[in-house]
Amino acid sequence: MEAKLHKLSLLVEKNLARYISDKNEYPPVIYKAAKYSLFAGGKRLRPILTLLAAKACGLSYSDVMPAACAMEMIHTYSLIHDDLPAMDDDNYRRGKLTCHKKFGEAIAILAGDALLTRAFECVLMCSKNRKIKPKNVINAALEIADGAGMKGMIGGQVLDITSEGKKISPGMVDYLHKCKTGALIRASVAAGAILSDADKKTVRLFSRYGEKIGHAFQIVDDILDVIGDEKEMGKKLRKDAAAKKATYPSIYGLAGSEKKAEKLVLEARDILAGINRNTDDLNEIAGFFMKRTH
Amino acid sequence: MEAKLHKLSLLVEKNLARYISDKNEYPPVIYKAAKYSLFAGGKRLRPILTLLAAKACGLSYSDVMPAACAMEMIHTYSLIHDDLPAMDDDNYRRGKLTCHKKFGEAIAILAGDALLTRAFECVLMCSKNRKIKPKNVINAALEIADGAGMKGMIGGQVLDITSEGKKISPGMVDYLHKCKTGALIRASVAAGAILSDADKKTVRLFSRYGEKIGHAFQIVDDILDVIGDEKEMGKKLRKDAAAKKATYPSIYGLAGSEKKAEKLVLEARDILAGINRNTDDLNEIAGFFMKRTH
Repeated sequence: MEAKLHKLSLLVEKNLARYISDKNEYPPVIYKAAKYSLFAGGKRLRPILTLLAAKACGLSYSDVMPAACAMEMIHTYSLIHDDLPAMDDDNYRRGKLTCHKKFGEAIAILAGDALLTRAFECVLMCSKNRKIKPKNVINAALEIADGAGMKGMIGGQVLDITSEGKKISPGMVDYLHKCKTGALIRASVAAGAILSDADKKTVRLFSRYGEKIGHAFQIVDDILDVIGDEKEMGKKLRKDAAAKKATYPSIYGLAGSEKKAEKLVLEARDILAGINRNTDDLNEIAGFFMKRTH
Repeated sequence: MEAKLHKLSLLVEKNLARYISDKNEYPPVIYKAAKYSLFAGGKRLRPILTLLAAKACGLSYSDVMPAACAMEMIHTYSLIHDDLPAMDDDNYRRGKLTCHKKFGEAIAILAGDALLTRAFECVLMCSKNRKIKPKNVINAALEIADGAGMKGMIGGQVLDITSEGKKISPGMVDYLHKCKTGALIRASVAAGAILSDADKKTVRLFSRYGEKIGHAFQIVDDILDVIGDEKEMGKKLRKDAAAKKATYPSIYGLAGSEKKAEKLVLEARDILAGINRNTDDLNEIAGFFMKRTH
């Protein structure tokens, strides 16, 4: 699986470079800043999920590549904005200076805006592919907007900021993380299925699978903030405790959090078992979510 | 015309309230912040242009209302981000505190992100209307992304920031303003025509009309920064000169700038004359662009 994921991440990167580039790249600094953050070495999990879901539903990787790349652009824009001084105020990300540290705050804000805008352009570009129905392109873009918007990722980030230092309930921690990380991961999986013309019931199952692994992913992220290696992670850790953020380990302890993540992965796999497609890769990637160290 | 514009702006506002609201409005602060800026009293020119272009091409106002509202959301997001301390650092806009002054920087950044995301959702919602072809919805959204993105509005803002205090050529001032203001106004007009299934040639003419009035609009904006009344404008003026920005008045003088704007409006009207539709309202609104005092 690791080899396959590596191959897919390289494929995504090759295409990301195409979709963010332009003959005239003017003004150059905004392209530079967007690319700087886009090629800072992410795991490309969101686009890979879109590719694997589409493949399971009968399309090829290249058919949905623009939409897959869009997911990485949205993820990157959210990191750029989250790292800003007014938000998490981070100087390093993946071992490199954050976008605003490298290009200044104004350009970083605009690079985030540009990536979000370009992401929607990319999803919509799927309409050039005759194998994909226009209505499916529209529905995939709507699903992505839902996952990235106020009810999803942005809402989660707002909750994260506004609940800092406050005591929040375990239910709220679940809700917060479902929005902040889960919603975009859910949309990444669902978009692949929607573009492939999967029926509503199947799309719903893929969505639920995405929700579960997205949730597990965030729990592992919280665990890594406690036990991870700063060098390997390439960013400052133990920030959650310092900022008095309500995280899974702070509520359930490390062992309890791990158990919770494992349970979610099992549930995700159960959901896949109910889908009448070849979901072997999605099944395997669910386990990978648990074993990651960065 | 003033009465008609007023009526249309009220119609837009009524619908904006619908499209930005949600049963659950959770977390509340992000909805509050987005609405605060959205209902701070803009002229609603961009959505009105979408409505008028669509009407000229055979659709009703309500048919394209979600797309019209999307244009105002994109415009508002750009103002929220432009006002941030890292950008233009403005405390007032339309006589009210700017979004970050009222809600803090983090929420203002996220409110802008949320409005941009919601805008794409709104355009795509036009697909629920059977009178509008899915492929036209996709093409309208692509046109809007183009106008709002790196080659359009964001590119213009980048140039504006990076050229502050530098001597730039008149050609570059034209280019900057075509991007910064012109591109989104162009897209507002074009989107209305595209959604209405206008043929390519007609769309191109509407686009060119939009380009011309967008350009004129920015020149008048520059003029108002010199001669306008701070109270009436509701924001700090004479900032361009203070920031040593290359503006039309600084290059062509006030009279020369006015002449240039008038010429652009004439050209815009000439383009309309070549379109085989009832473009009376668009013809009249072009003149309105010249006479505005705020």
